[in-house]
Amino acid sequence: MTSPAYPVGPHNLPTRGRNRATWDRDTVHAILDATPVCHVAYVDDEGSPITIPTTFARVDELLVLHSSSGAHLARLARARGGAVQVCVTITIVDGWVLARSGMHHSMNYRSVVVRGNALVVDSPSEACDGLAAILDNVWTDRSQHCRPPNDKELAATTVYHLPLEVVAAKVRAEGAVDDPDDANLPYWAGIVPITSTVGTPIPNDDLRPGITLPGA
Amino acid sequence: MTSPAYPVGPHNLPTRGRNRATWDRDTVHAILDATPVCHVAYVDDEGSPITIPTTFARVDELLVLHSSSGAHLARLARARGGAVQVCVTITIVDGWVLARSGMHHSMNYRSVVVRGNALVVDSPSEACDGLAAILDNVWTDRSQHCRPPNDKELAATTVYHLPLEVVAAKVRAEGAVDDPDDANLPYWAGIVPITSTVGTPIPNDDLRPGITLPGA
Repeated sequence: MTSPAYPVGPHNLPTRGRNRATWDRDTVHAILDATPVCHVAYVDDEGSPITIPTTFARVDELLVLHSSSGAHLARLARARGGAVQVCVTITIVDGWVLARSGMHHSMNYRSVVVRGNALVVDSPSEACDGLAAILDNVWTDRSQHCRPPNDKELAATTVYHLPLEVVAAKVRAEGAVDDPDDANLPYWAGIVPITSTVGTPIPNDDLRPGITLPGA
Repeated sequence: MTSPAYPVGPHNLPTRGRNRATWDRDTVHAILDATPVCHVAYVDDEGSPITIPTTFARVDELLVLHSSSGAHLARLARARGGAVQVCVTITIVDGWVLARSGMHHSMNYRSVVVRGNALVVDSPSEACDGLAAILDNVWTDRSQHCRPPNDKELAATTVYHLPLEVVAAKVRAEGAVDDPDDANLPYWAGIVPITSTVGTPIPNDDLRPGITLPGA
């Protein structure tokens, strides 16, 4: 069974590059599951935008976010009744697209934008589950191979749920698309691939002997 | 001569992790010059945050941004008198930090946050210079090896200058920092390095024979 696409409305219809946009649920999930890093944007009490990098996880149709309970985002959420309006952007860069014209230079990328209210998770056990999901998104099964948070740590951390409702993905995955008039210009055109590589784990200086990293 | 640090004020003082923050100008410049990709956050007319990935360049004490002239950002800037308040975040992920406790997991990263008004560049020659700087930030001297924008393309593109005034960097570059009580837990701790690699250029299918990519 094919899962239905996310609904398209005025808040998730890109103004430009609509030919790159998709609301296909499996495509969105695949991009969200391909990296643990996102940028969270919110509006401060002066009406100014702020965006910060952080780690997240997708759990079914939720994005799980977290911050220190002392962070600006958490303070705003509490002051705003337990929710803060955010825009979460996930971006994976796959290459530089070099064209014959300056105009048609581009990037190959996969991105998802999720807009909505990030709701503070009040239940400690749900918060714990959310933090475990984020750990597991960084490193497979990591939450099974570290000490779980204690009550003090849970109080110091705020977990948020952002429903996947207002969602759009954009994907560019092709070579340079130059104007036909430029096809014969004496300039190189193509893709310079960019790859993110996971390297060999470097143990802490104080790691006890004989402990290995599961999944490495 | 050491260049002076960026001034610290209420809008560029992180609420958390201040021990990772720096306003050192050379550090900020080095991070800005290490990637052409940033996330630009702004506030729409409903007061909602939006953040989008794009390419940029630093030219001395300016960030140069660009968008389609039909993009939301450009329309907002025009409607707001030629400037739009933004937060531009540059993030380079260097590794996952796996700790013995869930709580002390982290990332190694280099990031810069720049806040302020992105001013629309009205002068076509300055806009041209800005676009060339962005091309050159993606690939060395690229603006010398492609067709420059014509008047129609320049009109279709909006270039913005964001002064480097309200600026902060954060850098984490170390192993796991666990609580002393956790040092003897039987869990692995350390860094999993993440590296971004530039691959071998892939020429367009329609590239004329004999044309090579300068700098490859």
